[in-house]
Amino acid sequence: MCHTCQVTTTDISRPVCILGLGLIGGSLLRDLTTSGHAAFGYNRSPSAARAARAEGFDVTDSLEDALRRAEEEFALIVLATPMPAIDALLHDIKKYAPSCGFTDVVSVKGKVYELVKQHGLEDRYVGGHPMAGTADSGWRASKNGLFDGAAWVVTFDHALDTRPSQSWIDLWIDVVHMATRVGAEVIPARVDHHDAAVARISHLPHILAEALAIVGDNGGTLALSLAAGSFRDGTRVAGSAPSLVRAMCETNHAALLDALDETLTLLQDARANLDADKPSVGELVDAGYRSRIRYEARSSSRSGSTSGGSVHSGPGSDMSARPVIRFHPGADNWVSQLIQAENVGARIEVF
Amino acid sequence: MCHTCQVTTTDISRPVCILGLGLIGGSLLRDLTTSGHAAFGYNRSPSAARAARAEGFDVTDSLEDALRRAEEEFALIVLATPMPAIDALLHDIKKYAPSCGFTDVVSVKGKVYELVKQHGLEDRYVGGHPMAGTADSGWRASKNGLFDGAAWVVTFDHALDTRPSQSWIDLWIDVVHMATRVGAEVIPARVDHHDAAVARISHLPHILAEALAIVGDNGGTLALSLAAGSFRDGTRVAGSAPSLVRAMCETNHAALLDALDETLTLLQDARANLDADKPSVGELVDAGYRSRIRYEARSSSRSGSTSGGSVHSGPGSDMSARPVIRFHPGADNWVSQLIQAENVGARIEVF
Repeated sequence: MCHTCQVTTTDISRPVCILGLGLIGGSLLRDLTTSGHAAFGYNRSPSAARAARAEGFDVTDSLEDALRRAEEEFALIVLATPMPAIDALLHDIKKYAPSCGFTDVVSVKGKVYELVKQHGLEDRYVGGHPMAGTADSGWRASKNGLFDGAAWVVTFDHALDTRPSQSWIDLWIDVVHMATRVGAEVIPARVDHHDAAVARISHLPHILAEALAIVGDNGGTLALSLAAGSFRDGTRVAGSAPSLVRAMCETNHAALLDALDETLTLLQDARANLDADKPSVGELVDAGYRSRIRYEARSSSRSGSTSGGSVHSGPGSDMSARPVIRFHPGADNWVSQLIQAENVGARIEVF
Repeated sequence: MCHTCQVTTTDISRPVCILGLGLIGGSLLRDLTTSGHAAFGYNRSPSAARAARAEGFDVTDSLEDALRRAEEEFALIVLATPMPAIDALLHDIKKYAPSCGFTDVVSVKGKVYELVKQHGLEDRYVGGHPMAGTADSGWRASKNGLFDGAAWVVTFDHALDTRPSQSWIDLWIDVVHMATRVGAEVIPARVDHHDAAVARISHLPHILAEALAIVGDNGGTLALSLAAGSFRDGTRVAGSAPSLVRAMCETNHAALLDALDETLTLLQDARANLDADKPSVGELVDAGYRSRIRYEARSSSRSGSTSGGSVHSGPGSDMSARPVIRFHPGADNWVSQLIQAENVGARIEVF
């Protein structure tokens, strides 16, 4: 990056070490390697590690080897395992890579940040969450381009909780650059705000898809034979691996309860109106239509339209409908700029 | 059709007159005309009628003209208007086309059959419902191929309620042939069974999509900015015209209430389990996953796979995952064969 001419770059100042090579970790390794940035990985499964090596990637099935190498090369470590493995990994990072900064890609940020604090690692951690699909999983599902145009949340609570060190700010910049380098759009968000938002737009959709799949199935073979687009789309994510759906929803239970309660109120009101003398779903349907149209207007450019809604257009981001806010991390007002970006769901560019 | 050699044909014995040229009626007119079968139409809007004529279709904006011509040519009349227009059309059919048989494409069959009975037209009516999308509407949304591989429900209650006339059986055969001719797969179902099934797999998905769209939107711009595939797919049909969604759901309110109550029970149980000391959505997620997998197995061939699940493979239907039952309408056991087909959601072929 160039602070003088304010040209945006996506240079990451250090190698990247990815722990866990499933859909997200594997795709990240592919994109970074393809783009020419030094990246290596660890996968617990020797056969998956072998498969990755056979494709020419720099991968080991020894966690200790990966972490010792990360420490030697001062790598940026990415925790790309499911939630249940995070606690043990933090322990190992302290032991084998005591100087490295790290980020994660877990879909719930509150619980991870809690563990990071328990291990006293706040000054070495920046939370992350790429909004990329989970219906398929494992190294074999990984691919180049998975993050293209996707939102990648980067958290910044540590900059509010304390005056962060320069090394933390440098780490934060590198996490932003890594996400940008693989084509994602970085949306800053605080841990709690992130968790409340994804409960609504990611975890709740899973819960409703599961319920719809069951009620359709209860209709027997006639119902399944008649099922068309609305049922197919409405139940698609019920095909996600149950363990992944459980990990997301249960880890984020408090925020998901709020979203679910709002949904139950809407559905109970609709039920009452359907059961009235003059059955009506007008209130629900009119409000739902308005909401969907608002969402479509916001996301139209992301789904292939060429009309741009950007305040500014950054390099390679002509298609984005998200406004962009450019700023210099560490400058006096940078945290308030981050909060401003969070409030409007803006993507950021750093210089 | 050839009763001796039992070869299946899709010959319709009379011209087709389509009343209402929206997505369904317009697409039907296109496909029939393209396939070389005589078909003409009526549309209330003079500008849409003109647009159809400009494309070379045989279309008028005079309902009386269309019905008088149908009577002269002994055409099969298709009611392709929304539910609210049906009652008036039945009145006009009695007046201007007193000899013609007719079918409809309304997504709820109980209410239409009730009106048909009120008008004393049971022996001239066979109910129909093509399971084709409703997110876009109007003549401009119509297209060739809309019904390709889609289920097209044909009702048969009249054959249970009474011993039907030969002219009703001939009408029933022509309705089946019309649906088959435009590429649809005919699923026989009784009115009540149809309405219960579509409440689960078509109307409930709309209700859940509306609720999800609202709860996501309530999360503000951060939530909408983070929304990805699960929210996009889960809310897609909330973009349907509110008047069409209301007409479907409100007309089928009794069956929809049953489906909605099952859903509310599942969601309330999930809520209780999420709020427990050890939050869990395991029960819901495991059952939802199994249901979705069952649906995928049943519909895999329909969505592009080449593996066939047919008991028999009929002409042009190699891709179908639905079992097929072949029989001769009017034969001694034909109604029990229809019930058997309904029970397993089978498509039928007549000879």
